[in-house]
Amino acid sequence: MANGGFLLVLSGPSGSGKGTVSEALMKKNEEIRYSTSVTTRKPRPGEVNGENYFFATKEEFEDMVKKDELLEHAFVHTNYYGTPKRFVFDEIDRGEIVLLEIDVQGALQVKEKYKEAVFIFLLPPSMDELLNRIRKRGTESEEDIETRFSNAFKEIDFVGEYDYFVVNDSVDNAVTDIENIIAAEKLRVKRHSDVKELVIKPKED
Amino acid sequence: MANGGFLLVLSGPSGSGKGTVSEALMKKNEEIRYSTSVTTRKPRPGEVNGENYFFATKEEFEDMVKKDELLEHAFVHTNYYGTPKRFVFDEIDRGEIVLLEIDVQGALQVKEKYKEAVFIFLLPPSMDELLNRIRKRGTESEEDIETRFSNAFKEIDFVGEYDYFVVNDSVDNAVTDIENIIAAEKLRVKRHSDVKELVIKPKED
Repeated sequence: MANGGFLLVLSGPSGSGKGTVSEALMKKNEEIRYSTSVTTRKPRPGEVNGENYFFATKEEFEDMVKKDELLEHAFVHTNYYGTPKRFVFDEIDRGEIVLLEIDVQGALQVKEKYKEAVFIFLLPPSMDELLNRIRKRGTESEEDIETRFSNAFKEIDFVGEYDYFVVNDSVDNAVTDIENIIAAEKLRVKRHSDVKELVIKPKED
Repeated sequence: MANGGFLLVLSGPSGSGKGTVSEALMKKNEEIRYSTSVTTRKPRPGEVNGENYFFATKEEFEDMVKKDELLEHAFVHTNYYGTPKRFVFDEIDRGEIVLLEIDVQGALQVKEKYKEAVFIFLLPPSMDELLNRIRKRGTESEEDIETRFSNAFKEIDFVGEYDYFVVNDSVDNAVTDIENIIAAEKLRVKRHSDVKELVIKPKED
């Protein structure tokens, strides 16, 4: 039943600032639910199952992949990470907006399985600024920086697969753009099973 | 060339308040262009060709219909009215947002010819309120009022053909909703030929 909920996929290349924007967006809009990932990595002290992550064994994770229970998944370093369908779809069924912040490869996987999501591509304001941002992390060798930059450049070609683009020239502007997109998507006819019902039986306050 | 412009079709049944909302929207957003209709009715004193309307003879109008130069047209009382493609498409090519306020039948005609437009269905807050609004016009017989009301009720079924719905519970709220939709639609990837260009060659201010 479509009752206004949807999955918002916020994605972009390394250095686009999707983590920062995502955090600022959540802080300003407490009603947005953050998609909880499932992972095979061990919980760190203080991490709560079902809150920070759903923790799973390698066997459990591979079983979820086999049963097509994930919207996307990736193997990073020595661990699996994925987005469980059940969590996302349960929230959407309750009319919630679920935010998934993810890299470009992950977003493209989600699109294959669930094109009803709203896909936003976060762009750096310029390629110079993108390089600055990648450099500022300061933890990587010049070679790593160049690889990351060249990957980011190539990933921007996938913007055509997305619904919206947002230029991250400032975090505030990017958040406002995303808030406008959310406001508009809430008014999509296709996200409501019966719009006529809204008028015939207006909701009690 | 897609450079961000689009046609916004604001439509709804009689009594939904589309005229009032449309006027308030234009007043607050002076950059929006209003679609100029072509008509066979005679200019009234003070009306300027190409500003209030494009005035045409019956023969000229029928020729435009024959050549498929109109997005929609209707015969009202003794005159033709229509929306010329050229005006709308020229403005869109310049990156402008063009507003067309039109009844449901007209909007459905536009959709047949140009589904790339953004279609907004304006709903009254309730059927009681719709009846109030139709009555308040005070110029019609009880029979006319009932016909108008019953037509409006049937027209709401076409909301499924539209992209967005906006409930006109107050003019201010309706205008804000439409402004959010416009802000979001400006960020649509498909409305820009080359999003990557935005990043590689950022525009000079």
